[in-house]
Amino acid sequence: MLDRFKVQSADQIRVSAVALRRTVSTIFEKVGLTPEDASLGADVLVTTDMRGVDSHGVSNMLRVYVQGFQEGELNPRPNWRIVRESPSTATIDADRGLGIILGPKAMRIAMDKARNVGVGIVTMNNGRHLGAVGHHAMLAAQEDMVGMCMTATRPSVVPTFGAEPWFGTNPMSIAAPAGSEPPVLFDAATSSIASNKVRLAARTGATLLPGWVTDKAGRPIMEESPPLERGQYFLLPLGATREMGSHKGYGLALMVEILGSLLSGAVPHALDPSSGYKHYFAAYNIAAFTDVEQFKEHMDQMLRSLRSTKPAQGHDRVLYPGLLEYEEEQERRSLGIPLHKEVVQWFGHIASELGIPSLETP
Amino acid sequence: MLDRFKVQSADQIRVSAVALRRTVSTIFEKVGLTPEDASLGADVLVTTDMRGVDSHGVSNMLRVYVQGFQEGELNPRPNWRIVRESPSTATIDADRGLGIILGPKAMRIAMDKARNVGVGIVTMNNGRHLGAVGHHAMLAAQEDMVGMCMTATRPSVVPTFGAEPWFGTNPMSIAAPAGSEPPVLFDAATSSIASNKVRLAARTGATLLPGWVTDKAGRPIMEESPPLERGQYFLLPLGATREMGSHKGYGLALMVEILGSLLSGAVPHALDPSSGYKHYFAAYNIAAFTDVEQFKEHMDQMLRSLRSTKPAQGHDRVLYPGLLEYEEEQERRSLGIPLHKEVVQWFGHIASELGIPSLETP
Repeated sequence: MLDRFKVQSADQIRVSAVALRRTVSTIFEKVGLTPEDASLGADVLVTTDMRGVDSHGVSNMLRVYVQGFQEGELNPRPNWRIVRESPSTATIDADRGLGIILGPKAMRIAMDKARNVGVGIVTMNNGRHLGAVGHHAMLAAQEDMVGMCMTATRPSVVPTFGAEPWFGTNPMSIAAPAGSEPPVLFDAATSSIASNKVRLAARTGATLLPGWVTDKAGRPIMEESPPLERGQYFLLPLGATREMGSHKGYGLALMVEILGSLLSGAVPHALDPSSGYKHYFAAYNIAAFTDVEQFKEHMDQMLRSLRSTKPAQGHDRVLYPGLLEYEEEQERRSLGIPLHKEVVQWFGHIASELGIPSLETP
Repeated sequence: MLDRFKVQSADQIRVSAVALRRTVSTIFEKVGLTPEDASLGADVLVTTDMRGVDSHGVSNMLRVYVQGFQEGELNPRPNWRIVRESPSTATIDADRGLGIILGPKAMRIAMDKARNVGVGIVTMNNGRHLGAVGHHAMLAAQEDMVGMCMTATRPSVVPTFGAEPWFGTNPMSIAAPAGSEPPVLFDAATSSIASNKVRLAARTGATLLPGWVTDKAGRPIMEESPPLERGQYFLLPLGATREMGSHKGYGLALMVEILGSLLSGAVPHALDPSSGYKHYFAAYNIAAFTDVEQFKEHMDQMLRSLRSTKPAQGHDRVLYPGLLEYEEEQERRSLGIPLHKEVVQWFGHIASELGIPSLETP
């Protein structure tokens, strides 16, 4: 994550993962989830925070989810079901269940299929927010598989040459295990920047950089600009302009719609908002393709080589996707998770509203 | 394709697809391929030209392939074999066979598996150039499947913050059938620009645009610049700079290495050039996920909606991936394929060298 999005130390309150998990789980139970689902949802959010992905963790997402359950947009007890199935595939109707909770279940189904026939692909329609897609991909990587996860979300991104939002930020992720190196965990929106980041920028007062958004006429804004109000801008596909490859970001967003929305039997959100978010989960059983230990040894060689690539002038090291998240997790494991003091205040309000114990802070 | 890469009309000679296919097939036979493989290779190249993808068609690639066969880098009679297999997967050793010829065979295997168990994934190591990856993906789309194809190639792209090329341009593609609309055919390098395009720019004298390449110290060149000599630049990942998302292009390139190189039991080209190119083929049987006719109707709705998106100021329409290729194919079907006169000259030389009839031109 760019430094501009980090919570400044003066505004930080460090809380322990254990305490945060307990409180989040209790909140989820209070808004109607089963204890098992509440605990699973808390685990997904807090694990995301532990990896430093603040945009998709507790601070940015929990209150949105709580509001969704309270207003009835999210179904706390979804009757999700498999509507079509084959040895390597399943299509699920999520019945408006929250993605952070149904995602791990779908990925487990994909993994079972991969164990049986080599690969498992699960698509899910009528879904809701999936959280950090990389979290679900990582579940497969933890069991000697390559995991992938994508989600097609609410329109905010213009197609190249377009002046209306059509695609969601439609993120893609892949996770793969290594031997002694931290695993690969790639998780990125197919837009130039995630919507959550634009909201974070508004909260922290950070500017918007060139190539992130269009003006209302669909023209890419290629200079640094102050944060814009909702409705005054649209997000750009990855690549920003046609000349720099925005048609590729557009094509990737479309790929997510095809694999998520269309293959789950639905239409994109832009055509029918009531169809919800659609998700895609893939598990590749490494042993079906090659020797697992050799795969991990090759991963180690690759990742060490990437980390030792000569850095460009002005930079001190080359990273790989998942490395910073791993390092952040080590740090947060010992120091706790830094929440913005405003988020801790919100926990105070919601605890008193729901009549539950306060979040334990130092 | 950007206009700057198109062959100028004054330099064009239009040839018929039939004549071109015949000559290319004869050339392939003369350099040692079986008649069946020669015909298959000619079909892949000429179909690519018909779609307007000049960078990966006859004019840019054939002479490279011919040289490869003549110098022994390419194996004209590869003893390719499946080294590991499961109901939904196969791993193939390509034995240095040319990818444009083995690609369709691998995709057929993936499609057979998809027909049986829902999804088929084939990885291929020890391979050589795959041509336009979208061509192979399209084979699945022609049989009511969603096709994907990727290839991990020779290092030319720096990782974000790096000053050495590590990844190939590692293109990804997806193809999906529609009902009455032209099918989706997305095919794009995960770098800002394809190497072939930089070579094309050198040939046509076009400038390099901001965000395409780095200087030798790994710094992104963000101004328009004259074409650079090989060795004076490295390619940038899609996104160009970290702030605009180059870590996403980097992550996508890594995704291609994991799915292609690592899952085929090999290491990336950067670690072992003798390991060749690695390929990934996926076929999703639509009927395993949802109703095929409904899927196509949804595709039509989506594509019509994208085409009718309000255009950004300065543009007259919104396209979708595959639409221009379809339109180009209609035009070239009636007018013939425009080859640069310099390419037609090369055909003269090679025909006389191999003792075969000349390419038929108007």
